Amino acid sequence: MEIGLCLSFCNKRWKNPQALADFVDSLGIRLVQFSWDLVNPWWEEEIRDELAKEYAKAFRHRQIEITVSFSGMAAYAYSSLLSGDERVRKMGMNYLKRAVDMTAAMGIPALGTPTGCMESLEGTQEIRCEFPNAGRGKVMQRLADELIFLSRYASEKGLKQLYLEPTPVQTEIPCTALEAKTLMERLSGKTQIPVGLVLDWGHVLCPSLNGEPADMNYWLSVCKGYVGACHIQQCDGKMDRHWGFVHQGIVTPEMIRSVLENPDAPGIIHYLEYCPAFETPGDEVINVIRDSVKYLQSI
Amino acid sequence: MEIGLCLSFCNKRWKNPQALADFVDSLGIRLVQFSWDLVNPWWEEEIRDELAKEYAKAFRHRQIEITVSFSGMAAYAYSSLLSGDERVRKMGMNYLKRAVDMTAAMGIPALGTPTGCMESLEGTQEIRCEFPNAGRGKVMQRLADELIFLSRYASEKGLKQLYLEPTPVQTEIPCTALEAKTLMERLSGKTQIPVGLVLDWGHVLCPSLNGEPADMNYWLSVCKGYVGACHIQQCDGKMDRHWGFVHQGIVTPEMIRSVLENPDAPGIIHYLEYCPAFETPGDEVINVIRDSVKYLQSI
Repeated sequence: MEIGLCLSFCNKRWKNPQALADFVDSLGIRLVQFSWDLVNPWWEEEIRDELAKEYAKAFRHRQIEITVSFSGMAAYAYSSLLSGDERVRKMGMNYLKRAVDMTAAMGIPALGTPTGCMESLEGTQEIRCEFPNAGRGKVMQRLADELIFLSRYASEKGLKQLYLEPTPVQTEIPCTALEAKTLMERLSGKTQIPVGLVLDWGHVLCPSLNGEPADMNYWLSVCKGYVGACHIQQCDGKMDRHWGFVHQGIVTPEMIRSVLENPDAPGIIHYLEYCPAFETPGDEVINVIRDSVKYLQSI
Repeated sequence: MEIGLCLSFCNKRWKNPQALADFVDSLGIRLVQFSWDLVNPWWEEEIRDELAKEYAKAFRHRQIEITVSFSGMAAYAYSSLLSGDERVRKMGMNYLKRAVDMTAAMGIPALGTPTGCMESLEGTQEIRCEFPNAGRGKVMQRLADELIFLSRYASEKGLKQLYLEPTPVQTEIPCTALEAKTLMERLSGKTQIPVGLVLDWGHVLCPSLNGEPADMNYWLSVCKGYVGACHIQQCDGKMDRHWGFVHQGIVTPEMIRSVLENPDAPGIIHYLEYCPAFETPGDEVINVIRDSVKYLQSI
């Protein structure tokens, strides 16, 4: 299979565009997702875009395509578009607009991100829900409105596609296949450029939050027509592990083949998203990436 | 023992100042470390400081002291002051200055953070070291100069203390007790306000990177006079786990008592730093915090 690569593994490590592009090239990888953990959208525009363009140029020089610019660990800390606080949502939107600007400067056609998180807490009394009367549906509608606005801005800047990533976290939207489908339908035809989904194997295989099957083919069927790419990781079906394929886990070659052959999702590229612990030695990270890519390419 | 609390457990969850302060109050906690994952120093100043002050006010109202404002997950993604790229270092310094501004607006007297990371990679050929001729000592000297500059800015804004946090990561400085001591000595007497250390139990107990004992009392002796506080977590001595004290690990009550009685470090407060996975259910996080705090308070 053709495997793409998320640059998540670079965190706390390698931020040298040429050396990184050389390494990716040596793996036989031709498709890459850029990460905002390499260049922060909040940085001063001139320096930010200069740094970001150095990555774009280095990869392009080696005929490696950066297909999408994706949010990373730093972005994930904040409530962003799902906050119950208007001021925090505004900061989330400002951030995403800056990410659009950086993506456009790099000449990347698409941007992807989870949507944020709610400051709610079902099932406990100690810290109260931020949306006592709002309900999840209302939050989703507000989110849809924000995304419609963002799509307009992204279109103006020349982007062609936005992607959202469902997570296995109850305070995030979407966190189930049905919720993902509902949100996609709500956006369909209303956004200036298409909004699709990036599904993550480890997220999908986590214990379901609504009783749906924790099964990639189920998600692909429910979200048919909306899935643009997948993040692939080894995992245990219990937590969102982001292991490499040197680790014992439940993602088997048969499972992967059945997804590649799924007629609901033809031609979808799977991008390896390995997230080592910060303290994992650099050469171990290199070896895990090499072995995982080779393993997946052989399927 | 008196236990403090890092607000790291709030990530992707609770960002309601009143509810959070109520919860912390209910634990009998009087000392808290604020996290930049709650309010991002990069946000628009007016909104940022308004949000930050709401936390300060809510905690103050319940007689809970925020002793230090500490960087979190989002900050940790970037190379900051240790980057080999002057432009990235500049962004790191701008960020820290913004964090100083926010800390000052909250009326918190101290700021703490790890220093960043180098884009080097010893032991592998694939991605080259960013500092082929610089050497670690030169990088440390440049770091010291940056910290002297930051201390001046922090002093002007009314802060009284800066803290650095050693990590068990080879591309970061300091990552060993001897390196921490060397950096402290290099800064001593040169900074406008004192620069001290916050030691993390899980970092110290990770396999040593230079053959020193992975032992908290050893670190406290070597860094005598510089350690202002500790982050406490349960861990296994293999990785930087940030488990709560409901998990099997190597940090025993005897070990904790021996540190509390260490004459090299009298009166140091230990702040529980529990970092749950994002997908851990909210009520489980609440229970782990409650049980861990109770356990530590009973020692």
